[in-house]
Amino acid sequence: MYETIALVGATGAVGRIVLEQLEKRKFPYQKLKLLASERSVGREVRVGGEIVTVELLERGAFKDVDLVIASTPDEVSAEFAPWAVEEGAVVVDESGYWRMDPTVPLVIPEVNPGAVESHSGIIASPNCSTTQMVVALAPLHQAAKVKRVIVSTYQATSGAGLAGNEELHDSVRSALAGKVQPPTTFQHPIGFNLIPQIGSEKHAGYTSEEMKMVYETQKILGDDSLKVCPTCVRVPVTIGHSESILVETVEPLSVPEARELFRNADGVTVVDDLDGQQYPMPRDCDGKDDVFVGRIRKDLSCTNGIAFWCVSDNLRKGAATNAVQIAELLVKGTASSSGKS
Amino acid sequence: MYETIALVGATGAVGRIVLEQLEKRKFPYQKLKLLASERSVGREVRVGGEIVTVELLERGAFKDVDLVIASTPDEVSAEFAPWAVEEGAVVVDESGYWRMDPTVPLVIPEVNPGAVESHSGIIASPNCSTTQMVVALAPLHQAAKVKRVIVSTYQATSGAGLAGNEELHDSVRSALAGKVQPPTTFQHPIGFNLIPQIGSEKHAGYTSEEMKMVYETQKILGDDSLKVCPTCVRVPVTIGHSESILVETVEPLSVPEARELFRNADGVTVVDDLDGQQYPMPRDCDGKDDVFVGRIRKDLSCTNGIAFWCVSDNLRKGAATNAVQIAELLVKGTASSSGKS
Repeated sequence: MYETIALVGATGAVGRIVLEQLEKRKFPYQKLKLLASERSVGREVRVGGEIVTVELLERGAFKDVDLVIASTPDEVSAEFAPWAVEEGAVVVDESGYWRMDPTVPLVIPEVNPGAVESHSGIIASPNCSTTQMVVALAPLHQAAKVKRVIVSTYQATSGAGLAGNEELHDSVRSALAGKVQPPTTFQHPIGFNLIPQIGSEKHAGYTSEEMKMVYETQKILGDDSLKVCPTCVRVPVTIGHSESILVETVEPLSVPEARELFRNADGVTVVDDLDGQQYPMPRDCDGKDDVFVGRIRKDLSCTNGIAFWCVSDNLRKGAATNAVQIAELLVKGTASSSGKS
Repeated sequence: MYETIALVGATGAVGRIVLEQLEKRKFPYQKLKLLASERSVGREVRVGGEIVTVELLERGAFKDVDLVIASTPDEVSAEFAPWAVEEGAVVVDESGYWRMDPTVPLVIPEVNPGAVESHSGIIASPNCSTTQMVVALAPLHQAAKVKRVIVSTYQATSGAGLAGNEELHDSVRSALAGKVQPPTTFQHPIGFNLIPQIGSEKHAGYTSEEMKMVYETQKILGDDSLKVCPTCVRVPVTIGHSESILVETVEPLSVPEARELFRNADGVTVVDDLDGQQYPMPRDCDGKDDVFVGRIRKDLSCTNGIAFWCVSDNLRKGAATNAVQIAELLVKGTASSSGKS
């Protein structure tokens, strides 16, 4: 067990859910510290029955900390994570900064729990759009070896934090009033619109968000030969990323076989009855921890292809839930030891 | 020239734009009749400087009509189009009813204008999601033979007519007020949500909308070996369908070659500068007649693949504009004759 845990970024969209998950999942700890930048220091946050005051994220803050769960921008993580490790804490990090570092395991507990063991102080949680896709791909990959993935995403504004949702609501209200709200969080107005750009240009016309889906998928599944062609699009939905996914497998897979693999997979819920108008939708997945899969069908354009539709709450399995699950894996691994203090 | 033309469904979302297009494009005619079901009879519609009264769509209504442009539900077209042809008119039909009839040409004027000549009284205009995709595919197909298309759509609510847009606005207003507006036009609430179902189940887990993209694409391009795997999704956008498209070609195509082919294609506008945050978006394509293409890049998952993003105003090139362009082709063909009367 870890006696003292710290949460970095507790007041953000994901941090709030991490706190909720720690309580709901009865995560074992003695003391909780909340750390943030100067701007948030002194804020009081209710955690369970107690009030916890936010302290400054600075060198020395981790001296009494065993485990950190962090949800911060990349540049913040780049700076504080090495301090935290130096001061003896283990960091579960949700930022993009450490994910592709070869010394940092990138972990989805349902998919590659064993990877957590090789950590050197930092364990990364994948990008939201990658996590839900890989949770769904993993059982197909294990059964029939996935060789190619073509994915188009429909990503919610909460992927850009609380500010993203506020901007969507303001943008929609303005549009209904016949006005245009100039964007600040997104590149363009998002109300009643789509933006086919998430992140900046990274590689050969692909964005940083798209390349995360390529590299992180290969790293988590441990297969660099697996090809991914992604298109990432921001849509006017507040919570819940959706993905239209086509996989080509080395071995053939029938639709009933694929459905059964999904049904038996940890963390996957199948909602698949087109005739009954049942399939995953953002509004139904908001607030849930699973990855939801539906519209499972044979690819009409190649022999060994399966097409499906995948939705998950990007703040939960895409971020907070996965991080807390990684922390739970660490607790299991230290169950017989007594922690640092 | 056709002396008398009739418009069936003039008061719908598409009909209004057909009227606007006839005027804007200076479509040549002497007399215009507006025909509709009993409910709309007597309504007065301003066309250019004149007021035209809606008359009843019934047997005999086409006796003095040379050319009909019709935008109605399938079942209405199934009934009236044979009367119109019997009474001597040529029908340009936007419904889905006649499209796959082997005696009916399915025409996109930029793609297969010659097909119009073989008509037996009815010419069909393709489904909105098909039209914009095929306008973009055609130049690639001609240069490098497209063998496979994987497409995920992001379709606007106006695809379901004016009622679709009203429902989106009501649904969004309700959601902002913390309420749920029960859906009537769509299967589920559409405000801040996505619905991965357009139409009903048609074939092997694919919807009717999806199978239109398969069959109509093959018919227009005259190539039944061309494979299409579509996923059609309704998004909370009022006007402008978007499509994430991946094509595999027999011959290799570089990105500069593909961009040049798009640039030189009739009816296509390229908007493609990711670094400058320029790409097609619904809000920029609303009210425009072209098909907009951007995010052009090499497929990361196969050698002869090109990925791109395609947006078009579904009420214009997806419906009204294409129908009026077909009518213009007919006018050219009859330029030397004097019409029926």
